[in-house]
Amino acid sequence: MEWISNSRILIVGLGLIGGSYARALKRLGYHVTAIDTRKEAIDYALENHIINDGSTEVDEAVVSSADAIIFGLYPKVFVNWIEQYQQYFKPGAMLTDVTGVKSCVVYDIQNMLRDDVEFIGSHPMAGREVYGVENSDDGIFRGANFIITPTEKNTAKAIRWIGSLGRILGFSRISVLSPEEHDEMIGYLSQLTHCIAVALMTCSDNEHLVDYTGDSFRDLTRIANINDLMWSELFMLNRDSLLKYMDIFLDEFASLRDMIRDGKVDELREKMRLSTKRRAYFNKVKN
Amino acid sequence: MEWISNSRILIVGLGLIGGSYARALKRLGYHVTAIDTRKEAIDYALENHIINDGSTEVDEAVVSSADAIIFGLYPKVFVNWIEQYQQYFKPGAMLTDVTGVKSCVVYDIQNMLRDDVEFIGSHPMAGREVYGVENSDDGIFRGANFIITPTEKNTAKAIRWIGSLGRILGFSRISVLSPEEHDEMIGYLSQLTHCIAVALMTCSDNEHLVDYTGDSFRDLTRIANINDLMWSELFMLNRDSLLKYMDIFLDEFASLRDMIRDGKVDELREKMRLSTKRRAYFNKVKN
Repeated sequence: MEWISNSRILIVGLGLIGGSYARALKRLGYHVTAIDTRKEAIDYALENHIINDGSTEVDEAVVSSADAIIFGLYPKVFVNWIEQYQQYFKPGAMLTDVTGVKSCVVYDIQNMLRDDVEFIGSHPMAGREVYGVENSDDGIFRGANFIITPTEKNTAKAIRWIGSLGRILGFSRISVLSPEEHDEMIGYLSQLTHCIAVALMTCSDNEHLVDYTGDSFRDLTRIANINDLMWSELFMLNRDSLLKYMDIFLDEFASLRDMIRDGKVDELREKMRLSTKRRAYFNKVKN
Repeated sequence: MEWISNSRILIVGLGLIGGSYARALKRLGYHVTAIDTRKEAIDYALENHIINDGSTEVDEAVVSSADAIIFGLYPKVFVNWIEQYQQYFKPGAMLTDVTGVKSCVVYDIQNMLRDDVEFIGSHPMAGREVYGVENSDDGIFRGANFIITPTEKNTAKAIRWIGSLGRILGFSRISVLSPEEHDEMIGYLSQLTHCIAVALMTCSDNEHLVDYTGDSFRDLTRIANINDLMWSELFMLNRDSLLKYMDIFLDEFASLRDMIRDGKVDELREKMRLSTKRRAYFNKVKN
């Protein structure tokens, strides 16, 4: 394994995912430092032994001692951070991120980056509907997918390194996609589903209905508890893919509505059987 | 408690819910008999001590010895069953059901029913995305809602009886709604959510995407595994309420799409905050 045991790892942005990475890596014996503007996050992580060191400032000594840096920042803040502080990076440092959109960050960063460090994008497909290092939990990686998005600029060494990182964090599957394929996929599987959950929750005043709720409504609206700052940014940065899938879903839903309105039971049942058949593929992977 | 310990209970239709009722009631010491056209269901339930007796035929002696009868049938089959066999009922017998739509069954049955027995509608808001007595589990009632739908024709005695039944089955909350209120609520909370799950699953060929799936897509499509025969019947019998909510959801989703298309980030974030605020009510009830 290329990832050597005395690596010093810096996590920039100690939120739910950054904190969960920190927990996993520190437990494995890596020296984990974190930078976060939120003093409470750093204090909490130090008190709970989630990190070895932490700082609310971007300190040159801290950044330049890191062999690997993991960015857990919002996309635009992430790009700006690299622009502003890349002169501090240790030559040979490996960089990755956890960003939920890829095309809009990967190329910009690789184009501006110094030649003696390497950035390879990755996206841990894990999360919770709560936020902050205080809710971090490296158990969320078990059974989850880790997607890496190498480009022509990435070396075989970096691709091996990011695969090792995904494995030691505990992800079950490591997949490779181009940044564009990633964003297309995420537009459907993640962003569209969040839009649906929000619209289901906001389309009707429902507070008086809590006493009558079954599991199906709860399942479909779990992610209706949504960080508006982060998700609106992710949606805007992947607008074309998301809009494409929103329109595809709208058409399909409207056609289902027409079948019900027109009493076309055979067509309706056909749709339900297709739905059931497809869902079976997702069951298998889960178990 | 009015429900006396030597009651003989007959369950007609031994599927997932009927089987789960049987498990709970037999464990509590009631004598539980089942009628189901599927021989495998009766055999399984006898072998696994889920019922005391069972039959694949509608036997007069079996029906007439029951103090209480619970119907776990599809709506139309249920109404036909009552019409065909009500002459067998023991005078004073209490009847209830588990049907997911109410207006279209409760009044028809109460209008045709003999005067010396009483039917009171109820809907256990619990289920699984699998079927049959083989998958029955009375643990699904814990934390779940039990809705009773009395009409002008129901006596106080029957309302107390059905409340007791809900409590001994282990439901956490017993709520009272009119059949019309029930169907309106179910159109939104349950039927609309199932339509959304089906449309999300069928709108795009997604079998190649299983390796990239996160929990959000799995959560939103769990109920995309759907019994086409049962749910198409439920949709058709509650068509007006369901169509009303499908249109409300379509409008809301299309308006979210327009916000994203037009880059109206403030409006988008406002929707997300409303969504998050409303979801918090459902969190509280769950815990």
